[in-house]
Amino acid sequence: MEDKIFGTNPVLEALHAGREIDKIFIQDGARHSRLAQVTAAAKKRGIRYTLVGKAKLDELSEGGNHQGVLALAAMHSYSSVEEILALAKERGEKPFVIIAENLSDPHNLGSIIRTANAAGAHGVIIPKNRSVGLTSTVAKVAAGALEHTLVARCTNVSACIEELKDAGLWIVGTALEGSMPIYDCDMTGATGIVIGSEGEGMSRLTREKCDFLVKIPMLGKAESLNASVAAGVIMYEAVRQRESKK
Amino acid sequence: MEDKIFGTNPVLEALHAGREIDKIFIQDGARHSRLAQVTAAAKKRGIRYTLVGKAKLDELSEGGNHQGVLALAAMHSYSSVEEILALAKERGEKPFVIIAENLSDPHNLGSIIRTANAAGAHGVIIPKNRSVGLTSTVAKVAAGALEHTLVARCTNVSACIEELKDAGLWIVGTALEGSMPIYDCDMTGATGIVIGSEGEGMSRLTREKCDFLVKIPMLGKAESLNASVAAGVIMYEAVRQRESKK
Repeated sequence: MEDKIFGTNPVLEALHAGREIDKIFIQDGARHSRLAQVTAAAKKRGIRYTLVGKAKLDELSEGGNHQGVLALAAMHSYSSVEEILALAKERGEKPFVIIAENLSDPHNLGSIIRTANAAGAHGVIIPKNRSVGLTSTVAKVAAGALEHTLVARCTNVSACIEELKDAGLWIVGTALEGSMPIYDCDMTGATGIVIGSEGEGMSRLTREKCDFLVKIPMLGKAESLNASVAAGVIMYEAVRQRESKK
Repeated sequence: MEDKIFGTNPVLEALHAGREIDKIFIQDGARHSRLAQVTAAAKKRGIRYTLVGKAKLDELSEGGNHQGVLALAAMHSYSSVEEILALAKERGEKPFVIIAENLSDPHNLGSIIRTANAAGAHGVIIPKNRSVGLTSTVAKVAAGALEHTLVARCTNVSACIEELKDAGLWIVGTALEGSMPIYDCDMTGATGIVIGSEGEGMSRLTREKCDFLVKIPMLGKAESLNASVAAGVIMYEAVRQRESKK
């Protein structure tokens, strides 16, 4: 099974990150400086590229915005919860982990991985079943961040939360019925933040496992935020608290 | 010109908000409780609905997730900068306005309108040209918030910023090269927040008009956030500051 990475930035990121790439397709006749960077980076790593027509790239990318380049890569390899916690230790930081429960929209998962990376989180955990996986759309939306972010899969979210708790993490869940505004929840220690699915939010079982249920203030008529925006707001509240404590 | 609103929640919101609706199409044979709410709300407002086949709805919604219902409504009417400032005054609040410069992705604009509403902003301003307008995708992504949020169009962003400054607002722009972390920028007063376009960020002219250039800390390898996530992070930092000052 191969993963398709397309667009100049995602392919460049994959090349620079040393990801295992089998083959690169470049649009015949296309000329722009970013494409030249791709071919240079590919040569440097000894990866061959083939010139093909635009129609071939349109087909391979399933109509995606390929910008004249597409790479076939080994599927993104998943990390583990242990590796995520080891990264925090290695950096001498208190663990900061995102658990994305049952997201169905690859745009949301991609955006959450991008934000998690930007917010300095040590990794993202997704359930093995019932979640969108690391598809090429996720990679594209993550805008290169997937190459630099540990993503682990767990069989069971509840069991995974228990494992994180055993490692000393406090688990924070976002829920409309949460009584504590995010600003009042201390996230400066070892913290796991659970992001619920788009339609349903967190499952009942997961909610019961959380140490804190927090809510993002809703001051207008909107009842909720888009899942990736909500995730960004809470992750950056953690960043604010952590940075101000330094 | 008519606007198509589809999906049970957006149509219900439009009905409840008293929006001018010409006609509603319901999928023949579809049965679920949200649809019954739609027909009840339509009857209450004296708006007729027609039963049609799924294919007709698929066609009208251009393959969108219509959930068995689509409404034809008068195009969303735009508000004005004056009305946005008047709303703040009416509520006895310091103006809180979002200026979305040249967004091209309707998902981002829809999500920003939804977040602006949730964050208690008084309105969103978009440029007349060079920005995606209030399309049905924007309405759908805004998940009903468009009906409750003032959106104004301006001919020229620079001139609009001058107008806001004259009204006493401080203008905050987000830029990668901004030197002040968002957490250090006081947004408790009358504030306008500028969100740049997806690819380019703010234009040079707009950047020069800003009173403050702030940055969201990027602690990993990702160079930026998705536009709607960045907008959410900064809007909710303003919420935090404003709520804690109450």
